[in-house]
Order: sequence, then C-alpha cells, then structure tokens
Amino acid sequence: MPDGPGATASACVNYDQIFDQAIDRLHEEGRYRVFIDILRNKGAFPNARCFAGHNGPKPITVWCSNDYLAMGQHPKVIAAMEEALHDVGAGSGGTRNIGGNSHYHIELEAELADLHGKEAALLFTSGYVSNDATLSTLAKLLPGCVIFSDELNHASMIAGIRNSGCEKRVFRHNDLEHLEELLAAEHPDVPKLIAFESVYSMDGDIAPIHAICDLAEKYNALTYIDEVHAVGMYGKRGGGISERDAAAHRIDIIEGTLGKAFGVMGGYISADRKIVDCIRSYAPGFIFTTSLSPVLAAGVLAAVRHLKESSVEREGQQAAAARLKTMLSEAGIPVMDTVTHIVPVMIGDPVRAKKISDILLAEYGIYVQPINFPTVPRGTERLRFTPGPSHDETMMRTLTDALVEIWDRLDLQLAEAA
Amino acid sequence: MPDGPGATASACVNYDQIFDQAIDRLHEEGRYRVFIDILRNKGAFPNARCFAGHNGPKPITVWCSNDYLAMGQHPKVIAAMEEALHDVGAGSGGTRNIGGNSHYHIELEAELADLHGKEAALLFTSGYVSNDATLSTLAKLLPGCVIFSDELNHASMIAGIRNSGCEKRVFRHNDLEHLEELLAAEHPDVPKLIAFESVYSMDGDIAPIHAICDLAEKYNALTYIDEVHAVGMYGKRGGGISERDAAAHRIDIIEGTLGKAFGVMGGYISADRKIVDCIRSYAPGFIFTTSLSPVLAAGVLAAVRHLKESSVEREGQQAAAARLKTMLSEAGIPVMDTVTHIVPVMIGDPVRAKKISDILLAEYGIYVQPINFPTVPRGTERLRFTPGPSHDETMMRTLTDALVEIWDRLDLQLAEAA
Ligand SMILES: Cc1ncc(COP(=O)(O)O)c(C=O)c1O
Ligand SMILES: Cc1ncc(COP(=O)(O)O)c(C=O)c1O
Repeated sequence: MPDGPGATASACVNYDQIFDQAIDRLHEEGRYRVFIDILRNKGAFPNARCFAGHNGPKPITVWCSNDYLAMGQHPKVIAAMEEALHDVGAGSGGTRNIGGNSHYHIELEAELADLHGKEAALLFTSGYVSNDATLSTLAKLLPGCVIFSDELNHASMIAGIRNSGCEKRVFRHNDLEHLEELLAAEHPDVPKLIAFESVYSMDGDIAPIHAICDLAEKYNALTYIDEVHAVGMYGKRGGGISERDAAAHRIDIIEGTLGKAFGVMGGYISADRKIVDCIRSYAPGFIFTTSLSPVLAAGVLAAVRHLKESSVEREGQQAAAARLKTMLSEAGIPVMDTVTHIVPVMIGDPVRAKKISDILLAEYGIYVQPINFPTVPRGTERLRFTPGPSHDETMMRTLTDALVEIWDRLDLQLAEAA
Repeated sequence: MPDGPGATASACVNYDQIFDQAIDRLHEEGRYRVFIDILRNKGAFPNARCFAGHNGPKPITVWCSNDYLAMGQHPKVIAAMEEALHDVGAGSGGTRNIGGNSHYHIELEAELADLHGKEAALLFTSGYVSNDATLSTLAKLLPGCVIFSDELNHASMIAGIRNSGCEKRVFRHNDLEHLEELLAAEHPDVPKLIAFESVYSMDGDIAPIHAICDLAEKYNALTYIDEVHAVGMYGKRGGGISERDAAAHRIDIIEGTLGKAFGVMGGYISADRKIVDCIRSYAPGFIFTTSLSPVLAAGVLAAVRHLKESSVEREGQQAAAARLKTMLSEAGIPVMDTVTHIVPVMIGDPVRAKKISDILLAEYGIYVQPINFPTVPRGTERLRFTPGPSHDETMMRTLTDALVEIWDRLDLQLAEAA
C-alpha cells in the first residue's frame, strides 16, 4: 500500500479509508469485538485468570467455554499428550500425504469411525475445515447437486455450501414440511444433499433426525449432519444425538469437532469407506495442509476412549444445566427454554448484552461472552451459559444472584418466578 | 443413502457408483494416495518408525519433512508445550471471541508482528486457513477488487481467491512483464491485490519481491505474500525472504505457517493494525472456529523466539541442502537447480516416481514421498528432498548410493557427473 501524503493523494483507490470504514461500521453497531485475555487453570476449571487491564491476573469463573465436559484438563488427556510430546515431538511435519501421517492419526480415525458405527473417518485441522472442505468437495463430485440447508446452519457449513458453487435451497429451521416441499420441487435425477445440525448451539434445540432421514430416503438424498455440539455429550458412548436416537446408520456423513466436548482441537467426518476416500482424495482443504499435531491427536484419542466408557461427565453436565436453568428461571431471569445443555438468556440488544457481560466480569469475576451478530441474528443478542460438570452449586448461586442484582440495576424486567 | 437392492434399483441417482468412479479415476492415473504410517522419534529426527505392513515398527529416515529445522523436537519447544499443558490444559475451549482467547495467543501475535516489523498479526488454525480466510475476506471488503495471482500459487491461495468471488488474473510464474501487462489493463479506479509466494516449495525458486512491489506502487495495488516455506529459515531473525531482501515494509500482508520451520501447527498473517482488525472482524474462517490450542501457541512462541536469536539451525539447513545437491549431481542424479533449501529430483511420471519411492522405503529405509498431481502439474512428478540440520553426511551418502543403484536397476539415465 503506497503511503505518505503524495502517494495517497494520487491514489485512485484509498485502501486505508475502505478499511477504516469497515471497522467504523462495527463500532457504530456496537458489535466491535474486544477479546478477553485469559488463562484457564488446569485442574481447577472453570476457574481462570483474567489479564484485562488490571494489575496482575485476576481470578475469574468461565461460564462460556465449549470445553463442555472439562476434558481439556482430564488427567488421561494430559498424560497422553505429554507422552506423545516426548515420544514424537511437537508437530507432524507435513501434510497427511507427505510426511505428516502418523500412527496417532490412523488410530484416532479408527476410534472415531467406531464411535459412529461407520466404516471410516477422516481428520481435519478443525470442525470448521471439516464442514467447509467436505461439503464443498462432495457437491463438486456430484454434478448438478442441490444442497438443502437448514436456515440456522453454522457459518462453516454455509461456507462449504457456498464454496461448492452448487445450488442451495434453504429450509426453515427444523421445518419438515418446508424441507419436503423443496425436495419435491427438484427432479428425481438431481443429486441431493440435506445438510443440518443435531444440536443448534445458540438456541439449544435439536433436529428431528429420523424424520429428516425419512424424507432423504423418500427423495433419494444424501444426509450430512453436524454433531459438533453433541459428540461426546449425547449417546451412551458419546456418539451424539444420532447415537442417542439410534439414527447414525441412517446418516451418510456425520461431522464433529475435537475442540469442544473432546477438549482439544481438530475436526472430522465419519462415513462409508468410499465417501471418506473421495473426500480424502479430492478435498484441497484436507490435502494441502499440515496435519493435526500428533500431540493433539493423542489427547483426543484419550478423550474419545474415556467418554466411550464413562458417562459421569455427561450426566454431570446434564445435571448442571438442568440445575442452572431452574435457578435462573426461579429468579425470574429470562432463560430460554432448551432441551439441551445450552442455557441462553435472551437480551435482544448488542449494547445491553455487552454491558451486562462487562459488569459480570469487572464486578463479579464472572466471564460470559455476549453473543452478537453475525453469530446470531440481529435483535436476538444473548448471553449463553455452558455449565459443565465442574460448575458447582455455589458458582451457580453466585451467578444467579449477580444477574438478579444487575437486572435490578439496569431496570430490566424480571419475569414471574416460574 | 438408501441401500439394499430395492432402494438402489428405484434410485435415479446412484451415489455409490459416482463415488466409485471418482476413486477409479485416481487408480487409473496411478495417483491414488496411500498414506505411510510413521512415528518420528523425538530427539532423533530425522529418524522415525514405520508401521507399514511389516511385523513391528521398522526404523526409517525421513527425507521429506517440512519440519525443516527440526524445531518440532527442540528442547525449548517441548518444554514450553509441556508447561502450557500443565498450566492451562489441552485445548482453548472456544473461539477467539467466546472463551478461547488466551494470553499465549496474544503474546504470539505480538511476537509474530515484531518478527515482520508490522503493527499486528493474527493467528489461524493453519496456514491453509490463513490464506483462504484472508484472501477471500480482503477481496470482499474491497468492492470490485481484481486479484493478480502467480500461476504457481498454492492451493490455499487459489481457494481464497476463488472463494472471494472476485475477478482474478493469473500471471505467468514470476513474470514481471506479464504481471505489468495485466495490471496496466485494469482501470486505475479498480482495487487491486497482487498475491504471490516468496519461496515456491516444489521448484525451490524465489519471487522478485522488490520488483513486484515496484509494480504494486506504480499501479496502486495491495501486496500479499505467502512466506510459508521461508519464515524461520531466511532473514537474520527468520522473518523470511522479505526480511532477507529488506522488503517487509513494502508488503501489505505477510502470511506464514507455524507448522513447517516453526515445527508445530497453525498459521498467521502480519500487517497494519487496521488490515488485521478487518480480517479479525470479518473473516468467517477466523471467527467461527475453536482457536489454536494454547499448548501449540506456547510451543510456537518458543520456536519463534529461539529462531529470532539463533542462526545455527538456518545455517545447518543451508549447508545440508548445498551438500546434498552437490552429492546428487556429482552422482548424476537429475537434481533440479534451486536457489533454496528445496532439493527436487525430477522424474516426470507418477508410476515411476512411486516405484522409486517404494524401493527406497522397502529396501533402504529411506522415506521420501513421491509428489504427483494435483500438487505439481502432470508430467512433472518428482521426489522432493528436504535435508535439514540433522541430516548428516552418512545419511546423505546412503541416500545418494541408493538412488544410483535404483537408477541403474530401473534403467534410468544418469547424467554426466557435474
Ligand atoms: C455447529 C458448529 N459447527 C462447526 C463448528 C466449528 O468447529 P471447530 O471449532 O472445531 O472449528 C462450530 C463452532 O466452532 C459450530 O458451532
Ligand atoms: C505455499 C504454501 N502455503 C500454505 C500452505 C498451508 O500451510 P499449513 O500447512 O500451515 O496449512 C502450504 C503447505 O502446507 C504451502 O506449501
């Protein structure tokens, strides 16, 4: 970018100004994001240290982590990562094809395939990349494919669908009639793919998997489910809602993350061997990138294996979520009614949501990030709490009392106690 | 996917068959990829264990790692990762905005900004994602933008450019005249972005950075450089070719990976504060994904800091590359003439390249992956060696002798000794 007054004067395009305006728009809408600077305390989640502005780190309680089951501090996970670090080193050193494949990757893929009762699985560097790479590649392999996408699908699925360049039909959230209407409108010769999530993480509701699979069968469509907010947390072995509902065998491609309930980082798909082989062989987002660090793969392997056997964490999380929902609604805080572990409190305004969150952090040492556009639609800004097995009764009481005090201070309406 | 004979018979689209055909095409062209199953031995790189088929792991020497400086086993890197693992746990637990920011991320971004003499830096989960997310978002922020892209640009840059949806002009590799011709053909009012690499990793040549920046200034274009195969390895502090050539201040956006010379995993861009702020605020590939594990960030922080101070690794690598090129060309092996650390041997046929690589592995315990389409153009299949500071004279002699024997066995032509 040529700089100095001379250059700017003669320039026909003023890049600086364009970038300034893009940032200004965010400030004007009250949704410019400032990242909070924290370190979580291993062994003491959800406790953390916050470095924001103050002199020295200040203790806080994290209420918005997606490390839902605190597996990021589980002794088995830590031990596995430490062992891999000392055995094979820090990174993989290459792409999966060129020097970066390892025994950990292969074992983890086998473990994930087994988790979902599928023939194969494929690792990606993140859940985002697994959605983007798989959806865009799949649709390209199916000439003329039309993708049917739930209107609340995650940004990474939307990216994959857009990047596929194929036709897309958006159906109203979890609306089977609308989905069927759209499916029926296409010619039987057209390849079809229905893409949806199991747990929608901002509203906490769940897709009707079997009913969607019925439509898929009726109209000969492939099915793709994002179980990012469900793997590890639902089903007897943590196979997600598709395991809980005994529907995994009816879904063609199950996608998940290794960064939430499994506590580490990375993403994957699980499917028939031939579908996995196609994505493995054709997806640039899989092929042309350094593979997951073997240290991460080792940690996830321990987490997945543990959660296949142990239900303590899942039960602890469900109990904590139920308890918090009860406490909040008894106190009159407008907690959204959800059937999952997600506890959202609707605010409906970005500036007010940020204000409440700022007070919680500064005065109560409670960290919950306000959720604003583009993560949720404008006007539905909210606080989203994710209680886990390590959030205890005292923490919940502190949180509830703090919210009641702030509601009062800001003259917000408390609901009738439920 | 409805299965069973009945369903298949009535189906108008046969998904199975489409996927089968996609895989068959790869087999027919001899470029179906089988991943080798290895574990590198920390403390003894480039030595590793190979699990392929045999009974028990077999020792091998890795000749195709992109952990160019063996930082993946550096004691400082390992110690930093171990410390972070025990201090804060396995994963970050969230996106950068929601619970997944940490002091490690902030420190690492500051360190990377300093490395390139820029105001700011931004971390991504991989170099692939940094290219894809930045290029696609940048071009969307600049209405009507035209991107000028070197024809040999990496798949991740091509993905970002395609996903931006903007106009693209491809210039012949490192061809300044062609680039100028294309720049001159656009109206001065059109926002322009020139995207190129510093070190092209398959051919080992280098872009004329200053000359490209001259054109960028003349035509008021932004510049974007991928230094993935140069950061850590060139320049007094490892700032890449742009540091070596004292050109960093002339480039708007410098992109790099944390998974090659820095030995871990992840990617980044470094630029003016406002450009970084725009990408941070608008790029879905940055916003909607779990942030880099703090364990990885801690490791990279140690690697970057070490390589800013120490040139031993860089010098060791350059010496090893020069020595291997000499040995190979003295032996008559058709090593390509490169000005960098990359040592490619042209084969020109996918089946033969795989055959040589198979013999090297099975009979000599030497692992070098054949490079085929789509990583390089068809007909330019090659073996690509990446000697590093830990490849010693004996290993090089073993490799050279093995190649000479295989050349002889396969009736390949040895060149006149250079
Ligand atoms: C529904 C959904 N899918 C995919 C992702 C991306 O997964 P990852 O964080 O592993 O990139 C997320 C959130 O991050 C998500 O909420
Ligand atoms: C030129 C170039 N850019 C970007 C990348 C992607 O970087 P990463 O491996 O960190 O995803 C690679 C290779 O992996 C590359 O060769």
